[in-house]
Amino acid sequence: LRIKLVVAYDGTDFSGWAAQAGQRTVQGTLTEAVRRVSGEDVEIWGASRTDSGAHASGQVCHFDTEVGIKPEKWARVLNRAMPQDLAVISSASAGEGFHSRFSAEHRRYRYRIRTGPRDPFQSRYVHDYGKPLNLRLMNKAAGALIGEHDFLAFTEELEPRVENTVRRIFHADVLEYHGTEMQVEIVGTAFLRGMMRRISGALLEVGRGFRPPEAISRLLSEERESLQWPVVLPAKGLCLVEVAYDDPPRDHRTASDLA
Amino acid sequence: LRIKLVVAYDGTDFSGWAAQAGQRTVQGTLTEAVRRVSGEDVEIWGASRTDSGAHASGQVCHFDTEVGIKPEKWARVLNRAMPQDLAVISSASAGEGFHSRFSAEHRRYRYRIRTGPRDPFQSRYVHDYGKPLNLRLMNKAAGALIGEHDFLAFTEELEPRVENTVRRIFHADVLEYHGTEMQVEIVGTAFLRGMMRRISGALLEVGRGFRPPEAISRLLSEERESLQWPVVLPAKGLCLVEVAYDDPPRDHRTASDLA
Repeated sequence: LRIKLVVAYDGTDFSGWAAQAGQRTVQGTLTEAVRRVSGEDVEIWGASRTDSGAHASGQVCHFDTEVGIKPEKWARVLNRAMPQDLAVISSASAGEGFHSRFSAEHRRYRYRIRTGPRDPFQSRYVHDYGKPLNLRLMNKAAGALIGEHDFLAFTEELEPRVENTVRRIFHADVLEYHGTEMQVEIVGTAFLRGMMRRISGALLEVGRGFRPPEAISRLLSEERESLQWPVVLPAKGLCLVEVAYDDPPRDHRTASDLA
Repeated sequence: LRIKLVVAYDGTDFSGWAAQAGQRTVQGTLTEAVRRVSGEDVEIWGASRTDSGAHASGQVCHFDTEVGIKPEKWARVLNRAMPQDLAVISSASAGEGFHSRFSAEHRRYRYRIRTGPRDPFQSRYVHDYGKPLNLRLMNKAAGALIGEHDFLAFTEELEPRVENTVRRIFHADVLEYHGTEMQVEIVGTAFLRGMMRRISGALLEVGRGFRPPEAISRLLSEERESLQWPVVLPAKGLCLVEVAYDDPPRDHRTASDLA
């Protein structure tokens, strides 16, 4: 039976999603919890391999089990074996056609930039910029992200180039929150490693007047080679908010995923 | 010149307010920050000696300085030397008659009991009870706290009895928050050690039906000797929200403070 979980975590004390020997990771912690609960050594697939220090309020993952725990009971059972910085929000059965990563129709990320004075209760979850930013310019710049673009300038420079760097963005908004922070919200099919943190970096540069709003379009074009690429902001400001699926699930892998 | 600071901290990684050799404390961290900024070795007095693990969004403290930093600049200057779990919200000059602890007219504390499912972003700041509580009964019980009472049953048993255990409470309310937590808010002149955590413990016992609401009045009366005293809830759910002063400041020490 395939079980789908929605999980939330404060990523501060995790070395990211993906299991690594000797590191405390979200995938590793969940795998160990399943082992304690059911005695099974399962493979847990996550929709997104979040970075070390990045958070999730709506990460989705799945695994296959043969024990007789009811699908909707898994959340409660696993939560008894969870540390305080990780929780299973819900559990459900998923068809064999469902794959948390490959069936994801879109992912929603939020990046929080604090413009107001430092708040010790938010410091783990925001990038502390500490000065005002121009919301109007940031939103003007964000609009250029929508659609299908080559996000090469927004990812880690890899040598050799292994991936197709074209991605599709559906929504890109900057919201002011309580007058003390700017929240960058981006919805897209899939994201390249570091892409969300570099988009937020570019928008921060626009908001403080270091780049004009038109810089985003230029970074998405062939012109990128002659431009300074955006800074990457710290992982702690990033949160995976939602992963959405079609019903019934479809395979959303791109040609490069399948290669 | 006497400087008054309002400070906020996530108490999770502090061994409380009061400086102790070899421990990371709020008072010690602030004292060290002043030393780095001004070269002075000052004594910093806090309005409340919060417990290890308890938080503050509006703790007040003061110290005397002879350097020429403008009073309202101290906040910004000190914040450069602060760790991410401690922030100075504001700084101002205070008259010589002002004492953060002795002039405090009232203190407001909030205790957060989570009734909904666990949330990894709140786990450091709430007591995870995880089941519904009866708000109406809790508020009925809380009403009995208002006024001047002997809070002996709500404090640590000390041998020998060193203190006057009579305190005055102005407000006592339980508020439901987002359907996922109960917030106990108490305003009083001063609080005994552990008193707020035991008041919250007693109200939790009422809310889950373990005690009737009338139990609070009985615990405040001579009957207390024949009753089971309330449990103490964990420090992590507690936050010092506000300390208020008269203008001009008055000395609010009790006879036992002065003894």
